[in-house]
Amino acid sequence: MPRSFGASQRARTLSLVTATLVAGGVLVTAGLASGDSDTPADLTLKGAARRLDGDQTASVRSEVRSGHPQNVILLIGDGMGDSEITVARNYAEGAAGHFDGIDELPMTGSYTTYALHKSGPYQGKPDYVTDSAASGTGWSTGTKTYNGAISENLSGVPQQTLLELAKVNGLKTGDVTTAEIQDATPAVQTAHVADRGCYQPGLNNGGTVTKGMNNCPNDTYSITEQQLQVRPDVLMGGGAKWFGASATTGEYAGQTLTAQAAARGFTTVTDQAGLDAVTEADQEHPLLGLFAPGNMPVRWTGPIAKHGGYADPPATCTDNPNRPAAQPSLAHMTQKAIDLLENPNGFFLQVEGASIDKQDHAADPCGQIGETVDLDEAVQVALDFAKQDGNTLVLLTADHGHSSQIINPEDINPASPATVPPGLTTTLMTADGAPMTISYGTADTGGSQQHTGTQVRLAGYGPYAANVVGLTDQTDLYFTMRDGLGLVDDPADASSDGAVTATPAKVRKGKKVTLNLTGFEGDRRASVKVTGPNGYSKTLDLQLTVGSASAQLPMKTLGKYKVKTTGAQTGVAASTSYTVVG
Amino acid sequence: MPRSFGASQRARTLSLVTATLVAGGVLVTAGLASGDSDTPADLTLKGAARRLDGDQTASVRSEVRSGHPQNVILLIGDGMGDSEITVARNYAEGAAGHFDGIDELPMTGSYTTYALHKSGPYQGKPDYVTDSAASGTGWSTGTKTYNGAISENLSGVPQQTLLELAKVNGLKTGDVTTAEIQDATPAVQTAHVADRGCYQPGLNNGGTVTKGMNNCPNDTYSITEQQLQVRPDVLMGGGAKWFGASATTGEYAGQTLTAQAAARGFTTVTDQAGLDAVTEADQEHPLLGLFAPGNMPVRWTGPIAKHGGYADPPATCTDNPNRPAAQPSLAHMTQKAIDLLENPNGFFLQVEGASIDKQDHAADPCGQIGETVDLDEAVQVALDFAKQDGNTLVLLTADHGHSSQIINPEDINPASPATVPPGLTTTLMTADGAPMTISYGTADTGGSQQHTGTQVRLAGYGPYAANVVGLTDQTDLYFTMRDGLGLVDDPADASSDGAVTATPAKVRKGKKVTLNLTGFEGDRRASVKVTGPNGYSKTLDLQLTVGSASAQLPMKTLGKYKVKTTGAQTGVAASTSYTVVG
Repeated sequence: MPRSFGASQRARTLSLVTATLVAGGVLVTAGLASGDSDTPADLTLKGAARRLDGDQTASVRSEVRSGHPQNVILLIGDGMGDSEITVARNYAEGAAGHFDGIDELPMTGSYTTYALHKSGPYQGKPDYVTDSAASGTGWSTGTKTYNGAISENLSGVPQQTLLELAKVNGLKTGDVTTAEIQDATPAVQTAHVADRGCYQPGLNNGGTVTKGMNNCPNDTYSITEQQLQVRPDVLMGGGAKWFGASATTGEYAGQTLTAQAAARGFTTVTDQAGLDAVTEADQEHPLLGLFAPGNMPVRWTGPIAKHGGYADPPATCTDNPNRPAAQPSLAHMTQKAIDLLENPNGFFLQVEGASIDKQDHAADPCGQIGETVDLDEAVQVALDFAKQDGNTLVLLTADHGHSSQIINPEDINPASPATVPPGLTTTLMTADGAPMTISYGTADTGGSQQHTGTQVRLAGYGPYAANVVGLTDQTDLYFTMRDGLGLVDDPADASSDGAVTATPAKVRKGKKVTLNLTGFEGDRRASVKVTGPNGYSKTLDLQLTVGSASAQLPMKTLGKYKVKTTGAQTGVAASTSYTVVG
Repeated sequence: MPRSFGASQRARTLSLVTATLVAGGVLVTAGLASGDSDTPADLTLKGAARRLDGDQTASVRSEVRSGHPQNVILLIGDGMGDSEITVARNYAEGAAGHFDGIDELPMTGSYTTYALHKSGPYQGKPDYVTDSAASGTGWSTGTKTYNGAISENLSGVPQQTLLELAKVNGLKTGDVTTAEIQDATPAVQTAHVADRGCYQPGLNNGGTVTKGMNNCPNDTYSITEQQLQVRPDVLMGGGAKWFGASATTGEYAGQTLTAQAAARGFTTVTDQAGLDAVTEADQEHPLLGLFAPGNMPVRWTGPIAKHGGYADPPATCTDNPNRPAAQPSLAHMTQKAIDLLENPNGFFLQVEGASIDKQDHAADPCGQIGETVDLDEAVQVALDFAKQDGNTLVLLTADHGHSSQIINPEDINPASPATVPPGLTTTLMTADGAPMTISYGTADTGGSQQHTGTQVRLAGYGPYAANVVGLTDQTDLYFTMRDGLGLVDDPADASSDGAVTATPAKVRKGKKVTLNLTGFEGDRRASVKVTGPNGYSKTLDLQLTVGSASAQLPMKTLGKYKVKTTGAQTGVAASTSYTVVG
């Protein structure tokens, strides 16, 4: 043994691990994250970089929750692979820091994201790099498809989306993005077209129609029109400029999309003040938020990566001067959507931080990082609601990986050209006060940096969140959300005609009386009225999972109790009775 | 709603999800993985790409195991970020396929890997891209350090390694790699030097010493010498060529390292047959496997990525003709190490698949993929043992991310130079029969592709494996293994002088008799002898966790029972007695 090991150093370290348990109970900060402490921990000490404060087995077990969620909030960081998360955390929180949303979800795993080739020699085989359309179709429909497809399969057949399924099952629904609402990720829940570019009715005319139906000859309606038809209770993002086109067919032929939205009863708002004034959003008056002509301007701006950029002095990100003050943040939109959607039948809400991807394409690290921070705040809003509510599944993932990589400038020697990254680079000064060099190496100056085919992180909180652990596929996420919510696949066929309400006929006083409902497959909730001796009367409101539920019934005194259950959606009733004996 | 959704398609899909539960109960294959089925699933169908067969909550919960493992097997894929895993899975198993080792570990999370700057303006602050030395020091000592450091902290103070700590706690230990045994990852468990290149005693002389102590002026012994001093029971890999140097100081001054190994009692083997013939490895005769002069040759070979390589016809990987038939695989070495290390006091074994990193540096996708497959087989060996043993924690992670990225050749238009990846690319034909294009964009032709700073996957199986879930840091892994094994931090100070063996004095027949041992802090195991009426005698062998254990004692008949506990390591004894009454 060459040398001895100083015990004093170890002892000193122990007191440095700030054991502040954060919500969820799994993670602790190392005391370095900005805002947590005025004096950053000395990371050179043994144990100082720890994120855990001891054995997490019990807290992880407590996060593996049984039962079915009433609500699902799915948050997507477009293009937010693990590399993009690390870039953003290093910059905004420091390497030992912690995102209070993104890093806070207690259940974690990875999923595969590949698309399929539409045609040619590899038709039907994996296309290893997905775009946002094919990947979104994966989680919104459970079906793998080709790049560019919006919730149609490889044969062009529309696939029912989770949002549509939730809606016909009686849940409220929302679709929120920082992109244009017609962009691929929001569109996969609310439209079905052969090509993601088919935003507007009619063919391109260079005027009001520049993203028309040219590539969607077999689809009757454009993405925007279908979004108005599908009619989620809340639909928010950018994309106002596409509403000037007029419908070419159907009930609203000849009318602009703006006029159609009004005629259909949508409440349209265009800024945060307008959004804040909205107090209700439902099928009578759904909410349409259009906060920018195109994509919503991003939060931060900074240097674009370039050849040799690694050697420039480290830069810092600044607020984007072109972002209107009246524009709501993603967190603000998310909070409002939750407020408007919360109801006893449950809701499904998709929230996208869209421009992590768009700024990664542009080799713009500050743009990308600011949007990750923006998404993190939205995740915090969702988590705060879910923790209070207790019956909400929050999911966070990406649709695909992206180009940005953290590299080491010390490995670069300009005198040795082989060591110089051939792509675009830049260096930022992080929250740690240390330089971080980022490389974009999949396209050249002015080109669009590519998506990558890596598996990406999937994380969750709440009932059913354990289904994100391990390795899954993007299409599994559809089934996790569908089955978690207990959605019936063919609600048109589902009825409560076979509904049964059952209890034991006689129960000895002091024993439990268990009520079982089955066959209420046309319902999401049921009202149970119990009447008994001495004028006893009580009403329970039960959530059903695929038409079933159970509950413990009251037993105040000896005698006969009558039970009548009524399905909330169908009105179907089923009765039983029990007698409490001595 | 634009169109209807075909129910027949959904129904057809259900039967396609092959619900073959794999071990661990969490994952199912989608029927596409090569070898699983003669007829690959039609991935175009809804649900056909699923990896899960329904709600996994119960199976995930069952994998959150309580208690402390007796053994830890830590497997490292050097440079095996999520991108590298996906590249290898796509090629070897298909995009919907499944690695039976890597993808099989039921508990999953990510950890941060950053190093610290040793000196200069950012001294002590995060260095966002780690090398294998600093990252390995993180998990082997719990201490962040600078790139190049082998288990010394930023001030050059040696930090006790987990392997050393395990050894002085009475566990058997092993350190296995496909690299030279002196390479950073194996060295972090078995040496302490200021610079990872200090393999040999003396200064470089251009002859027997070319990796000498030039950069380690304050370290007395080289990595190789320290590995012989630290003396794990099993030490295997390549690196034979460094043993020709002679010690310059100490007991073996003037003798070659080969002679020193022999004098110290090491059993040295150089090929698989020699390895297979070994039946014991312990402190009297530790096993030294040196299977190659330098790094062990890799399994697969194929085209090196180059400028414009994406446009070449897709290539396939072939066996490396330069790999000796007598060379054991990593799985073979892992199995043998487990066989030699298994013992009642437990063991700690580190296993590294080293050349995923080295081939990624070389922009050699087939080399990188073959080594990932090689590691996967070693993970399978470890998992098979752990599942049979029931008391072993298996951990799998990477030390850092790397350069390789899967990109989309359809995004490249040679007529538009901005779309052409500026780095090195190549295309392989995968197990799916589809082309996969891989980009290396962090160094140029002939240069060394860089590590990246992304967080990487950490996965586990067995008791304490839940500590990998969520976001942790590389240094957390040290504490997870230390605390999981119940290792005492200062075993020299730990004694069993305060040992207590306790039971209730009287127990009514039919009630449980609980024995509690405490204070046996100098011991890892204890023998409990119980004697009672009518010549009753029974001996229990208990594993202690930080000197404590409990057990249920026998109670055959009424009368008095005597209990004597003896610590296995210290020989300290403590006694008690109890009387069973009617």
